[in-house]
Amino acid sequence: MKLPSKVKIVDVGPRDGLQNEKSPVPAEIKIGLVHRLQDAGLTEIEVTSFVSPKWVPQMADNAEVMAGIQRKPGVRYSVLTPNMKGFEAALASRPDEIVVFGAASEAFSQRNINCSIEESIERFAPVVEAAKANNIFVRGAISCAVGCPYEGEVAPERVELVARLMKQIGVQHIGVADTIGVGTPVKVQRAMEAALKHYGIDDISGHFHDTYGQALGNTLATLEMGVWQYDTSSAGLGGCPYAKGATGNVATEDVVYMLHGMGIETGIDLDKLIDAGKYISDFLQRKPNSRASTAILNKRAQ
Amino acid sequence: MKLPSKVKIVDVGPRDGLQNEKSPVPAEIKIGLVHRLQDAGLTEIEVTSFVSPKWVPQMADNAEVMAGIQRKPGVRYSVLTPNMKGFEAALASRPDEIVVFGAASEAFSQRNINCSIEESIERFAPVVEAAKANNIFVRGAISCAVGCPYEGEVAPERVELVARLMKQIGVQHIGVADTIGVGTPVKVQRAMEAALKHYGIDDISGHFHDTYGQALGNTLATLEMGVWQYDTSSAGLGGCPYAKGATGNVATEDVVYMLHGMGIETGIDLDKLIDAGKYISDFLQRKPNSRASTAILNKRAQ
Repeated sequence: MKLPSKVKIVDVGPRDGLQNEKSPVPAEIKIGLVHRLQDAGLTEIEVTSFVSPKWVPQMADNAEVMAGIQRKPGVRYSVLTPNMKGFEAALASRPDEIVVFGAASEAFSQRNINCSIEESIERFAPVVEAAKANNIFVRGAISCAVGCPYEGEVAPERVELVARLMKQIGVQHIGVADTIGVGTPVKVQRAMEAALKHYGIDDISGHFHDTYGQALGNTLATLEMGVWQYDTSSAGLGGCPYAKGATGNVATEDVVYMLHGMGIETGIDLDKLIDAGKYISDFLQRKPNSRASTAILNKRAQ
Repeated sequence: MKLPSKVKIVDVGPRDGLQNEKSPVPAEIKIGLVHRLQDAGLTEIEVTSFVSPKWVPQMADNAEVMAGIQRKPGVRYSVLTPNMKGFEAALASRPDEIVVFGAASEAFSQRNINCSIEESIERFAPVVEAAKANNIFVRGAISCAVGCPYEGEVAPERVELVARLMKQIGVQHIGVADTIGVGTPVKVQRAMEAALKHYGIDDISGHFHDTYGQALGNTLATLEMGVWQYDTSSAGLGGCPYAKGATGNVATEDVVYMLHGMGIETGIDLDKLIDAGKYISDFLQRKPNSRASTAILNKRAQ
């Protein structure tokens, strides 16, 4: 086991999480969440998405949220930019990083963006170029890296293809995302190995959903490969659009609990992190979707 | 990684699960659950406990439940027997196996049974002897093997002590139980290594609670050591007596989903297993406490 001694967590709750929540969340609450996350020690936060409000009304306040954050030195603020128009809109918000994405499933690509995998990545080339010209770091997300809601299992070769295409257009870091949470330890290791053919271990991260309860096992399986960067979502924010009522992103709290228990540093204060998750969950009028948070909040109440 | 190719699951839902449920469950429902579990392919089921109904009223129907089961060839039915009186009462029910238990925490032992760890194990000696004289297999459970609600972290040396004492009195198989679910991968590996000093890999099992969401990571961490026997609970039955509202035993469904995804055989039909969990959850008027079950039931409903 070549477990890393430190892990970097990117909290994607404000974007990937809240984007999948039904109830609208005001900009000031989103800003409050970002402030609590950075205060808990998160060093990167995926804040919002610059995408048409017609498609994603939850993120229509993107510029307002970005402008309202009191930035903390050493923290990176990233935003999703699906196209040139989104990138141009994002620019004024001065993100440290933009995120572009491509699916490793041909069926998903065709059904969702009406083009092939290759075409979908090519379309990002000018966005990547513009970002780099503006000194903005570019992260790529490979969605459906293990399974797809339309075509079922996804072969590692597809992940390798997307990684290669992203490398070609200049994407600097990639995330291997099990968007529908169907992955299990050996499968995610194969997907990760495929991506590692084009990116080094320091330029790759894992993004696991907990829909089938597998995210922590998948995190452990990839930690053992030396992966040390993970996307997680405070309070397990975000559902799964393909399985109503099911869990989406793995909760940051559960991952941090595991890492700290293993003696792996994250720089995160678990108690403050739990407060951040409780803050947004209280607003959404429900309990955090995190078992570690549930157990710790119960203990606090005793 | 020396992953096993087959895993044996012992479903402890009818006993460890239902014992921690508030609402009383009639014997016929318990029997219905056992029948559904064996029909789903489970080959061992922890059915009930022969303990004073004054302490555990939920298990007062132990003899009735055992008598009502239509036994299936190849399936083992185990029962908990905390003392000689319990063992004698259990004998008429013809269990294939009895379970005795000791805590790896001195504080837990003192607070719960008013004696030292050593004394608590010695008290089982006549039970073990009587069981073996009756050709009944004896399984030992080492509770609080990673953490204790009273003394916090539990050292691997304590686990080794209990394993040694159990070996001395003739216990044939031991389970390493993270009763309060605080364990994380490296810690459970250490606890397992300690137990392995006195028992072979074929005579040991893992019993992980999902209170902090760590059970699947802990299962994977011990699978990698070659452990191939696990206790789990259908529908995640059973809460945690030390953290109200928190999760107890890991759901059988989540573990089976992971194992099958890893290509590891269990002999269990996941769909039938989900039906079994839904049967008891419907009776308890709630949803199964299993993410895999939630996701699969949602998909079925679409």
